Parts: sequence; C-alpha cells; structure tokens
Amino acid sequence: MTQRITVVEKILGANERLATENNKILNNAKVVGLNLMASPGAGKTSLIEKTIHGLGSRLRIAVVDGDIATSIDADRAAAAGALAVQINTGGECHLDAVMLGQALAALDLSAVDLLIVENVGNLICPAYFPLGTHKSVLIASIPEGDDKPYKYPGMYQGVDALVINKTDLLPYIDFDMDYFRRGVEALNPGLITFPLSCKTAEGMDSWLDWVSEVASEAKGSTFE
Amino acid sequence: MTQRITVVEKILGANERLATENNKILNNAKVVGLNLMASPGAGKTSLIEKTIHGLGSRLRIAVVDGDIATSIDADRAAAAGALAVQINTGGECHLDAVMLGQALAALDLSAVDLLIVENVGNLICPAYFPLGTHKSVLIASIPEGDDKPYKYPGMYQGVDALVINKTDLLPYIDFDMDYFRRGVEALNPGLITFPLSCKTAEGMDSWLDWVSEVASEAKGSTFE
Repeated sequence: MTQRITVVEKILGANERLATENNKILNNAKVVGLNLMASPGAGKTSLIEKTIHGLGSRLRIAVVDGDIATSIDADRAAAAGALAVQINTGGECHLDAVMLGQALAALDLSAVDLLIVENVGNLICPAYFPLGTHKSVLIASIPEGDDKPYKYPGMYQGVDALVINKTDLLPYIDFDMDYFRRGVEALNPGLITFPLSCKTAEGMDSWLDWVSEVASEAKGSTFE
Repeated sequence: MTQRITVVEKILGANERLATENNKILNNAKVVGLNLMASPGAGKTSLIEKTIHGLGSRLRIAVVDGDIATSIDADRAAAAGALAVQINTGGECHLDAVMLGQALAALDLSAVDLLIVENVGNLICPAYFPLGTHKSVLIASIPEGDDKPYKYPGMYQGVDALVINKTDLLPYIDFDMDYFRRGVEALNPGLITFPLSCKTAEGMDSWLDWVSEVASEAKGSTFE
C-alpha cells in the first residue's frame, strides 16, 4: 500500500501546482471562478441555469461542465445563454486541475467575467482536487437527507458556501433542519448557507447577491 | 500517467482476486451476499431497514455498512434487528474486497443467511470494485432526476437489479419515467427494476420477493 500512497501523494501534489497555474490564468484574465460540487441530482445544473438567468445581463458567464459521459449539462448551460465547455472524464469521479486547464485553454477568457465549474456529481472525491477557482460551493439537497454533513465531513469542511436546494420538498420529506445545521456548524463554523428552491425560486435572490459580490470582490485573489 | 495507470490496474487486479476469496468464504458458509450501491441519500439504509423488517423472521440477515465516517447506518441496521458491522473508509470513496474480507472475518457467518453490503454513497467508484457478493443492486431515487442513467452509465451497466426509490415524491418532481427507463434499457437490457417507496411501502413486496428468491437460488453460485 505504501507504493500506492506515494503515487497518490504525487498526483495530489501535481494537482495543487496546476491549480495554482489555473488560478494565475483566471487572475490575469480578471475572471472569477466558482467550483460547484454536489451529489448526483442535487441540482447543480439547475442552479447554474438560474444563475445565468439572474445575472447573465450583468456578468458574462462561462460554464465548464464535468461529467462521466454526455453533454447534457453543457447543453443546458449553453441554452441558458452561457459559453459552455463540456469535459467528459471517462471513468474519473472528479475534475482535476489538468482538465480545468484544458477547458480554460478552450475558452476566450477575455469575454468572461464569471466562470462556473460544475464538478462531477460526487460527495467525496472532488474535495481532494482543488482546481484553482476562487470559491468552492457545495449544493446539498433536502431529499438527500439531514445526515449528510456527518457522513461526508470532508466535503462540508472544505467549502466557502453551502446551498441547500429543493426546499420546496420540505413538506413531503422528514428532514430535521436543526440536526443538519448542527452538523454543518461543527465542521465549518459560520459557513454561509443559502436555503433555496430552483423550482419555485424561493431564496434565490440571496444566492444571486452573494455570487455578484464574490464576482466583484474576488478578482485577483488567490484560490482557496 | 502510465505509471499511475499501471498502479491502478494492479489495485483492480488484486481486488478481483480478493473478491473471489470473499465469494468462496460466503459460499462455504452458505451465505448469499448483496452489494447495494447508490448516490448519497438515495435510500440505501431505509431499504435495508425495510428488508430486515420484511424478511428478518425468515432469514438471518447481517449488514456491512461502508461510510466515510460515523456508524449511523450500522446503528440503524442493528436497531432494525440485524447483525451489523460498520466499516469507516476514512477518505475512500468505495468499499473494496479487502474491507469486505475484514468485515466477513468479524462476523459469525454460521449465524447468517443473507449478507447485505451497503456501499459508500457514490454513483461512480463502487462500480469498479467487485466485492465477491452474488448480486449487485443499484438504488436510484426519483429526486436525483431522470437523466442519471445517461450520466453514470458505468454504474447502470454493471448491476443485476435496480430499485427506483421515493416514488411517493413523483407528484412533486418533474421526472420522466419513460426517458429514465429508455436510458436504463440501452445500458442494461432487460434489467429487473423495482419502483417503490420506502416511506409508504408501495412496491415493497416485489422487492422482498426478489430478495427471498435470490437468497434461496444464489447459494453456492459464483459472484457477478
């Protein structure tokens, strides 16, 4: 197992260096990058669509979509009005800094203010691979259940903001918001959260305000 | 990357050999093993609870729970009346045959008819690591969305049965069952499916009948 661990450490180290490169590329182009992570089906693509609809008139938005297969998500982002690049990872369970670097090279960054990266649907592996974006955002969803912070601590620990999507389903699901929030607070004290519904648009304004703010403040900062 | 690929191939080859060992251990003990895989929050633990309640009087059931952290799931399985072993994988995003081998060693298999393995919540990585169980089962859930077979083909291709959980939420969610089923059929023709709700128990009987049947038929068979 030692050999395996050494190789994994080398991969993570190389990823970190390439993430720093990506961050420089974004900063030079004055582009702010968000890394959106979540379980499959938590609503990453829907949130991106709503964000493009809400901010697309003020910010030039590009989307990089990571998926095992298909271009369903990039097609949806493009239909919503963004520049969109699809990365198919083959079997890989997360995006890494190499893949984002390739996507950045394929984009005309001089035409972009905000880059939204939609990571592969997975609550575990993406947490280990920083991409060089400025902020990491986790999207939880009500039907996933209230125990997820306890069971996937690595993901909850490392993010800068938490969206709690599908609040419209709260009446139909046993979800103890206090229990959920206690779990989050223990792992990531003071984490900013956005309970919202992409379906009804309830709570969407606070999220859009935060993204706007980040897009203006984070320019030129180093990645987290 | 070549070095990395070689190491990955070695790991997968070693896993396959150990899975064969696990399968022999199960067969020698006349225990039938199921490997349950799903996204975080699709309802693996709830389905296990309902299965224990439904079949626990006829079959002696043991549960091996894989999670990044906590013993929440094993505690629930134990409370429902099963022998339960929790495996905390640390950061690993899937169970492997080594981990299951350790769990088998910790169980008195002479007191078990059916072993249910609850894999780590992840739609990608567990598909690459057979454990030596007799049947693999995927649990999809309505709120995950109808595009998941298209986006996570590896997982849908490799399983022997598909549970479609949380059908009670169908009235509140845009989920095109025909589109979903077409995706499944293209990847895994004729796959047996069980639409059900762990909450209302609708559809549960067909699932329990299938598990009973597998538990009596699969004894002594090689793993898939």
